Amino acid sequence: MRRLTCLELNAAAFAPFGAVIDGEGRAPESINDGTTQRYADLARLDLCANAGDGAPLIHLYVASARRFPLRLARLERHRRASQVFIPLNGQRFIIVVAPGGPLPDWERMQAFLSKPGQAVSLHRGCWHHGLVALNDSDRFAVIEGGAYRTDTEELDAPEDILLELPE
Amino acid sequence: MRRLTCLELNAAAFAPFGAVIDGEGRAPESINDGTTQRYADLARLDLCANAGDGAPLIHLYVASARRFPLRLARLERHRRASQVFIPLNGQRFIIVVAPGGPLPDWERMQAFLSKPGQAVSLHRGCWHHGLVALNDSDRFAVIEGGAYRTDTEELDAPEDILLELPE
Repeated sequence: MRRLTCLELNAAAFAPFGAVIDGEGRAPESINDGTTQRYADLARLDLCANAGDGAPLIHLYVASARRFPLRLARLERHRRASQVFIPLNGQRFIIVVAPGGPLPDWERMQAFLSKPGQAVSLHRGCWHHGLVALNDSDRFAVIEGGAYRTDTEELDAPEDILLELPE
Repeated sequence: MRRLTCLELNAAAFAPFGAVIDGEGRAPESINDGTTQRYADLARLDLCANAGDGAPLIHLYVASARRFPLRLARLERHRRASQVFIPLNGQRFIIVVAPGGPLPDWERMQAFLSKPGQAVSLHRGCWHHGLVALNDSDRFAVIEGGAYRTDTEELDAPEDILLELPE
């Protein structure tokens, strides 16, 4: 049995797994007659070149709070498109990821606690846990590839891994 | 001189211009071991088939409050990709759009006031005004086509059109 605690989400630590969408450390450009600061190109959708996948889609997720310690029983990945999670009320959430190719490297699994206002884009093929929300009725916009219904691989954890409630 | 007031944003009224991302009137499906309700496929990114455009990009916009009555001096459109505006703190905002092809139909320009939690996707090529935020420091995630820096047509309004402050 293993216990996992949350790291703080920032671009450098998260780089192997994806992009953090928050503008931190970036210089914005002024558009819309000076009324908007644009932090451009924070994430790029990585879509499989197979046109048969169709266009990327946007979903709304309404999540329940997870209970902690949370048993991380399973990881999944999507090989045909990156996946984006955007909290709709500035709420924090937890992103659980692992490096690896055909198999996740369970020993190097990591959990990141977002700061208010941060969103993330997961690299195409990145092993990750299903959405971990901290409050009931938390809402997220999620962007996926057009083939998302057939593009999920899942694998069960080889041992009990428990995620601690962040402080 | 003409004055424009805001309509309530809903899927039916907005259909000629794009999609409303809010799950209203949709049946969700249960995923993530029952901890997430997914309202799937609320909007589809419509991307030009020209691979030279590159992948779609995600920006962060930080906007200032507009002052009302707001002079709607100019509309723009992007012919190579749809464009998505996602408020990051559940805030309301105003979407100004007009039907039309090579030229906007200025007489049929409309303004929609979103409800808290609603996001929108504008159809590829839809004439629209730059982002109209209601509060200082309002944050939005914006998704655009990879060619967004060269994919904007702008046209000046042929008369003074003033948008009233919504009640």
